[in-house]
Amino acid sequence: MEKDTYSQHISRQYNRELEEVKAHLLEMGGMVERQVALAIEALIEGNSAAAQDVRDTDRNVNTMEVSIDEECARILARRQPAAGDLRLVLAISKVNTDLERVGDEAGKIARQAIQLSEEGAASKGYIEVRHIGVRVCDMLHRALDSFARLDAEQALEVAREDKAVDREYNSAIREMVTYMMEDPRQITRSLNVIWALRSLERVGDHARNIAEYVIYLVVGKDVRHIGLEEMAARVHGD
Amino acid sequence: MEKDTYSQHISRQYNRELEEVKAHLLEMGGMVERQVALAIEALIEGNSAAAQDVRDTDRNVNTMEVSIDEECARILARRQPAAGDLRLVLAISKVNTDLERVGDEAGKIARQAIQLSEEGAASKGYIEVRHIGVRVCDMLHRALDSFARLDAEQALEVAREDKAVDREYNSAIREMVTYMMEDPRQITRSLNVIWALRSLERVGDHARNIAEYVIYLVVGKDVRHIGLEEMAARVHGD
Repeated sequence: MEKDTYSQHISRQYNRELEEVKAHLLEMGGMVERQVALAIEALIEGNSAAAQDVRDTDRNVNTMEVSIDEECARILARRQPAAGDLRLVLAISKVNTDLERVGDEAGKIARQAIQLSEEGAASKGYIEVRHIGVRVCDMLHRALDSFARLDAEQALEVAREDKAVDREYNSAIREMVTYMMEDPRQITRSLNVIWALRSLERVGDHARNIAEYVIYLVVGKDVRHIGLEEMAARVHGD
Repeated sequence: MEKDTYSQHISRQYNRELEEVKAHLLEMGGMVERQVALAIEALIEGNSAAAQDVRDTDRNVNTMEVSIDEECARILARRQPAAGDLRLVLAISKVNTDLERVGDEAGKIARQAIQLSEEGAASKGYIEVRHIGVRVCDMLHRALDSFARLDAEQALEVAREDKAVDREYNSAIREMVTYMMEDPRQITRSLNVIWALRSLERVGDHARNIAEYVIYLVVGKDVRHIGLEEMAARVHGD
């Protein structure tokens, strides 16, 4: 009887540790989501104080990355998780890396925002930045939400969305190039916008990566590097 | 006595599994090293067949990434590694992600090589591509070598080198921008070169990430997101 109570206690504590590290990851996710959104605003509004805010937050994100990896290592060492619990810890450790790199991209967008506010705003590309920005922020949000709710179906939608974002990104870059050729005095500023677009496209890639880890976590199958149709088949157990 | 032989057997097999996954990782490392070098050659020589080769190899790299992560998960589930063994498995799993992304960057350089061979070679920037390319290939090679030999000192040098590469990259980009302003007809081709430079700079970042995981593995301390001086202090146990 006493032993039973003891193992229940252990198992309750173990579950709490798993829930905690998951909560920390989602907290970090919320933080980088806000960073990306703020960096986009900073660029479009020419608000260099907001851009500086984004860069300052990066330190907190970095600290969280290290601490979440420590939690994962501690759980692996002490609890020796198996099956679904092991997949959870491994997925957290991978998503952690992607989130930190999203934070890096937000920092890069903020840097372009600061340069644009110094050089004078670019005259083209802001509509594209806002448009693609809204899409990738939404992707990131839904990827994290699918992690929170273990929703493989929603994760699959995020992966699908990435293709559409890539198309929009390529068309935005083509427009920027045409524009630079028409007005070479705008080259430096246009390049700042191009780098920001590139960072946003990378954020979309990271959201897709996160979605793929959610699918791995939920259905137990690795869906990296396969087409969307095969991915859907694995999610639906075909 | 029999039990002892049994546990020795288990432990020999366990060590073999650890050695094997490490060997697979280093094999994948060698593969992406060759991809990057070949992609640079393809770009400079305008050799689109070589570029296609790089893109074809990417599939093998992707397969290896998935299979190395499976090996790591299997070892964690069956062997429940602790201390240094656990750090090894975790470091392998992280380096695996970085290597796959290096393969992606090689693929992107190859894409620029194909476009340049179609549009006609760019007239500037090749010297910089070759120069930065040689440096990041060397960084990647030494990062993997420091992993193979568990050499934290060499890993520290790789991290140091990354700063120098970033400076060279920034100066190369500035030159390309000046050049585009002087001759706007070269904008498209110059952008192809700029994307290739950007990819090389990212390869340098990944080499640095790998070096940081080597230090974590060898000295047991996380050295991400700290300055080089503090990193050196942790390596030297100050």
